[in-house]
Amino acid sequence: MAEIEIGLGKSGRRAYGFDDIAIVPSRRTRDPEDVDISWEIDAFRFELPMMASAMDGVVSPATAIEIGRLGGLAVLNLEGLWTRYEDPDAVYAEIAQLPSDKATARMQEIYAEPIKPSLITERIREIKAAGVVAAASVTPQRTEEFIGAILKGELDILVIQGTVVSAEHVSKTQEPLNLKRFIRELEIPVIVGGTASYQATLHLMRTGAVGVLVGVGPGHACTTRAVLGLGVPQATAIADAAAARMRHLDETGVYVHVIADGGMSKGGDIAKAIAVGADAVMIGSPLAAAYEAPGRGFHWGMATFHPTLPRGTRVRTEQRGSLQEILVGPARENDGRLNLFGALRTSMATCGYESIKEFQKAEVMVAPALQTEGKSLQREQHVGQGR
Amino acid sequence: MAEIEIGLGKSGRRAYGFDDIAIVPSRRTRDPEDVDISWEIDAFRFELPMMASAMDGVVSPATAIEIGRLGGLAVLNLEGLWTRYEDPDAVYAEIAQLPSDKATARMQEIYAEPIKPSLITERIREIKAAGVVAAASVTPQRTEEFIGAILKGELDILVIQGTVVSAEHVSKTQEPLNLKRFIRELEIPVIVGGTASYQATLHLMRTGAVGVLVGVGPGHACTTRAVLGLGVPQATAIADAAAARMRHLDETGVYVHVIADGGMSKGGDIAKAIAVGADAVMIGSPLAAAYEAPGRGFHWGMATFHPTLPRGTRVRTEQRGSLQEILVGPARENDGRLNLFGALRTSMATCGYESIKEFQKAEVMVAPALQTEGKSLQREQHVGQGR
Amino acid sequence: MAEIEIGLGKSGRRAYGFDDIAIVPSRRTRDPEDVDISWEIDAFRFELPMMASAMDGVVSPATAIEIGRLGGLAVLNLEGLWTRYEDPDAVYAEIAQLPSDKATARMQEIYAEPIKPSLITERIREIKAAGVVAAASVTPQRTEEFIGAILKGELDILVIQGTVVSAEHVSKTQEPLNLKRFIRELEIPVIVGGTASYQATLHLMRTGAVGVLVGVGPGHACTTRAVLGLGVPQATAIADAAAARMRHLDETGVYVHVIADGGMSKGGDIAKAIAVGADAVMIGSPLAAAYEAPGRGFHWGMATFHPTLPRGTRVRTEQRGSLQEILVGPARENDGRLNLFGALRTSMATCGYESIKEFQKAEVMVAPALQTEGKSLQREQHVGQGR
Amino acid sequence: MAEIEIGLGKSGRRAYGFDDIAIVPSRRTRDPEDVDISWEIDAFRFELPMMASAMDGVVSPATAIEIGRLGGLAVLNLEGLWTRYEDPDAVYAEIAQLPSDKATARMQEIYAEPIKPSLITERIREIKAAGVVAAASVTPQRTEEFIGAILKGELDILVIQGTVVSAEHVSKTQEPLNLKRFIRELEIPVIVGGTASYQATLHLMRTGAVGVLVGVGPGHACTTRAVLGLGVPQATAIADAAAARMRHLDETGVYVHVIADGGMSKGGDIAKAIAVGADAVMIGSPLAAAYEAPGRGFHWGMATFHPTLPRGTRVRTEQRGSLQEILVGPARENDGRLNLFGALRTSMATCGYESIKEFQKAEVMVAPALQTEGKSLQREQHVGQGR
Repeated sequence: MAEIEIGLGKSGRRAYGFDDIAIVPSRRTRDPEDVDISWEIDAFRFELPMMASAMDGVVSPATAIEIGRLGGLAVLNLEGLWTRYEDPDAVYAEIAQLPSDKATARMQEIYAEPIKPSLITERIREIKAAGVVAAASVTPQRTEEFIGAILKGELDILVIQGTVVSAEHVSKTQEPLNLKRFIRELEIPVIVGGTASYQATLHLMRTGAVGVLVGVGPGHACTTRAVLGLGVPQATAIADAAAARMRHLDETGVYVHVIADGGMSKGGDIAKAIAVGADAVMIGSPLAAAYEAPGRGFHWGMATFHPTLPRGTRVRTEQRGSLQEILVGPARENDGRLNLFGALRTSMATCGYESIKEFQKAEVMVAPALQTEGKSLQREQHVGQGR
Repeated sequence: MAEIEIGLGKSGRRAYGFDDIAIVPSRRTRDPEDVDISWEIDAFRFELPMMASAMDGVVSPATAIEIGRLGGLAVLNLEGLWTRYEDPDAVYAEIAQLPSDKATARMQEIYAEPIKPSLITERIREIKAAGVVAAASVTPQRTEEFIGAILKGELDILVIQGTVVSAEHVSKTQEPLNLKRFIRELEIPVIVGGTASYQATLHLMRTGAVGVLVGVGPGHACTTRAVLGLGVPQATAIADAAAARMRHLDETGVYVHVIADGGMSKGGDIAKAIAVGADAVMIGSPLAAAYEAPGRGFHWGMATFHPTLPRGTRVRTEQRGSLQEILVGPARENDGRLNLFGALRTSMATCGYESIKEFQKAEVMVAPALQTEGKSLQREQHVGQGR
Repeated sequence: MAEIEIGLGKSGRRAYGFDDIAIVPSRRTRDPEDVDISWEIDAFRFELPMMASAMDGVVSPATAIEIGRLGGLAVLNLEGLWTRYEDPDAVYAEIAQLPSDKATARMQEIYAEPIKPSLITERIREIKAAGVVAAASVTPQRTEEFIGAILKGELDILVIQGTVVSAEHVSKTQEPLNLKRFIRELEIPVIVGGTASYQATLHLMRTGAVGVLVGVGPGHACTTRAVLGLGVPQATAIADAAAARMRHLDETGVYVHVIADGGMSKGGDIAKAIAVGADAVMIGSPLAAAYEAPGRGFHWGMATFHPTLPRGTRVRTEQRGSLQEILVGPARENDGRLNLFGALRTSMATCGYESIKEFQKAEVMVAPALQTEGKSLQREQHVGQGR
Repeated sequence: MAEIEIGLGKSGRRAYGFDDIAIVPSRRTRDPEDVDISWEIDAFRFELPMMASAMDGVVSPATAIEIGRLGGLAVLNLEGLWTRYEDPDAVYAEIAQLPSDKATARMQEIYAEPIKPSLITERIREIKAAGVVAAASVTPQRTEEFIGAILKGELDILVIQGTVVSAEHVSKTQEPLNLKRFIRELEIPVIVGGTASYQATLHLMRTGAVGVLVGVGPGHACTTRAVLGLGVPQATAIADAAAARMRHLDETGVYVHVIADGGMSKGGDIAKAIAVGADAVMIGSPLAAAYEAPGRGFHWGMATFHPTLPRGTRVRTEQRGSLQEILVGPARENDGRLNLFGALRTSMATCGYESIKEFQKAEVMVAPALQTEGKSLQREQHVGQGR
């Protein structure tokens, strides 16, 4: 592992993001129809290798059902609006109309409303009633508090998620969640994260989780990096996690899924995430652009309203297509934001790969995306004649 | 070949684009008049080492003839407007007047019009009647369907082109074009592409093609990279293809031409393409800026109207000179977009090289073009006193 | 130490700034409340590992007192407005109203007013009377001239500061300050800087100073780099200084503090400064944004009004919070500019570190912050669910 | 010499520009008054290590005299307006009033006026009559045509300059200037350039020139790079030329001066040029900003009006100070564009160097100047307290 000397006595590895790399076609090409992009985790099989982020602006019971029908897996946030309010519709409407300078303060109030365990159970049942796989998320801090209501709803997959979740949380004042014991004893599969290094991922895999969410400050200019200074660009984080997956498989015979979480906005980013080793991707903002998204043209993360150190903000987004158009097309625009998984399929076909497992071994190059404007236009015109 | 570690267990080569490199003058200089930039491929000789991209906004029978007279080789798109419409003039006029938000949908309809084999034959004859070399392109998927009409027109050079074309296309549902058998049996020379790696290029060269088009997502921020995640920056792609050319020559004694396709907007880009190993260049958008271009100030690629995953868009371009001014000058502006091949000649002379073959061995440096604004102005003024 | 060849016979090390690196979470996480960020230097203990820069727009006796009460250490500029004017209030008011094109000339006049030693003594006493630790700065050139008045005020910590201060100043025309003798003989602790290399820092440490200020042209595009061509990006400068600290400790048993000075505007920058080896940070402009800051929405450095070679300028800044909100929160915005030390605490907790000394050994990666805009938005939304 | 692989079989060195490097302070500092920045070449001594570029917008006989009085050496363009027109005043006035879209065409006409040898003699005499050293430039193509008139005027230093000048120009149609024989036989010293590589510089040094101008497309985004694809970033070009100087000195005992030509807009750039090995600098656009500059707020290079391939353009510049203020101050602004040589002196003093020869060995770091905006402001404020 090549270390770069930052100064005398301080070295670090060079890390790479999606914008730093590109996939290289192999010597074969393939028909897109022949490509298999389906995903199997635990006892579940999905047409699409994707999860929808547990963001209130993206996943409601209704969109969870629609995403499930389209072949994906949506994660409902069990500490968000849907478990704090019986009918959050009016709340969403108010949020979408808040002026920018008042949004943070008012949303802090909105999220001060207590979580009702009964609503947890109810929301899960609502999703399951539609016949799709139900997944939902809690933070490690409140997992034990809510697990009763969760199991009562007969959730299919539990997601335990924080900015960073480790297998060894240390606290002087309270007994932290013992992830290993908790997961081993739980009867439903658990996906856990975020994580971003080989060692931390390996320890999370050893808790018995069926999947880990990889991504801490993945975008180069992301909020976590500005506020906290933390972050690992995603291409490196995913490749490291894939190496931990191999080590864990070698040690235990158990294959734990690596789910790339964050930093992907276009079809090309999703293809790159797989090409450096991910089994599936978790996406949020691309889905917030759906007409059906509950955020009504806005989305936000849960750290946005941290009482003393908010990170993130309410972000306006253009509503540009239906969930179906965004996930599986057809695309009527050409910027890579629609038909994300048709793009993955075409990318794999164009490069000659047949399955996700094969595509994880694709050749990639380090090829930074910084670029003069002229070049970008130049290319538009002769992409032509493709399949 | 130096590999960079992207993460544990995933490495990739560093790739370079035109903006990343610069040509270094040798210890000699030369008179521009003494420099030979002519190009010979198969039985044909051209004053200019260039092909015009098979884009509907660039190449019509009329501009093909004009480009041929100026010393270049234009490629007519046989799956575009000229073979779908008897008289595409009204169609071009309509396209140029479409509002942006309606353009994609309407152009999808326009391109839904079937291709008429009789028009294929007719368009080729129209170009040949003017006494210039006739070249035209088809996609691999439809090559066998149209080859009869093409041969009937007595085409001189056939171009088989897609986003990525490989010598080994795999399909479960249909028998793909066997490029090797097809090209060997065909009586006219074939140029094939795009391709972007050593192995894929080598296999394409073994099909018997006289030239390969090198370029897959060459621009750093190009559409193919955003939508599909694919792409190899052009300087690296061309150098790799040139290495494949040498290997193929060594194995077979046959010299297959490397034609750099895409990513070039200025004279300096063309010089760099040659300096890293290209025999000739294929350019599109620089020619779309010609007064004679059929696109009337617009250009677009064929993937722009893919029914489910469009890539590229209708691009507006400034009409800035005649085809003659763009190709061989004289330039009346100084931004490198006019007199492209006068610039190539001057570049070669200033560096002391006499022919394309010599210039392919020019010294280059890795010298990224990112730069503060002040420097750029600073330089304007003392380029002076040059020859 | 890897040297890069710039040209034949000229090599240099690659240096890194805060934007070039990111901190990597360890396999542990921790409760923020358990993290200790306090700082001890000489006989003093501070709740926050920070000093406020000796800038007239930031530190007045009043803000020095407030910063001291909040747990930090402010440095009053003894060659600025507070020692030239009995009541600088009107002067500040005038500066805040100067039109841009007149500001430099008028401020040159304002700073031509002689320094009154009696005011030096008085200002120090004013701060001490409030019960906080009093620190103040002089340039090496005038240290001996003012030391009497300084000692008379019973200053706690003396800061001797210039753009670059060395242990070996050479002059043909006047006897320079002998830092080593001066500091050894002085009864109060001295902090000295700026410095930016291993050797220069080591020599400064040998003068007997209790701390060195590390930072010369730390920002990549800073004024010192533009005007003088000097500068060492901060991550490298701090790591080098930390190596000098270790060498000096090994040689003498004395631990001299490394205080990162400059180039930090957000919480993440402060975390990175510690993570590459700093004991504490000196910040200026982030505090100029406080409602209490004497600059009334402006700040400037002392070199701004150099009579023949001004560097820096009067900078307008947005007043965005109280000193308390900026230093320890709560933050009501999410851009990393409020609750700077709450952010440090959360960063350390998220990465699993308990004390500044531990955090100095955190793993970092080289991960440049250059980034397309889309990514930045993408990340906003799923920072969620953090602690 | 480390080579980077661009592609299979094509490698190149990594080159660096001024923006890529920064000077590192040594462990000493020094009084600016003690620093010696004077320059001696051939029998001449100058207070400032600088030449003014032979640009019509910068050097007239009057400004040549003023620059000489201030301690520098201006070069008059003998193929420009002053030798084509008896009284170019009206021509300058017209140029300054041309609308942008007409400027190129009209200036092509203006420069079509023949050069009068008698004016060459007269202009040189005009400068010499003022008692300053007279330098003037011709292109290699016309050197022999004008040398009689030049010698008649008793020029002190002849500059033979083109975009690239080599010791081995090859022509099939005319006998090129044999630089080696010409220079050896000439009774006055000759400076020659541009050049940009070790070998080319070494060969130019062997012609007997007393100095070489180093710079071909030095700015990363400069015109020569866009139009011709040529260019070597200046830090690398200068260091390579300095290595050639050492080799030539070793072989012959003759020290040939390396004069960095182009790419410098601020004091810091000049300091860097020296720090990587230059003996002096040639600057143009910074002087075009002088009130006395003949260009009246405009400047342009001679290649700007090349009849078929213009490079460069008429550039508007802000008139920001007198020649004296720009060269030796005092500066009333703080952007590094005034008091350029006071800045060089301060840079050397701050780093602890006493003479140009010493400063050529200064430590530099590779520290790219790309930077987020926030950092740049941050630094403004605490440059303070410098000497």
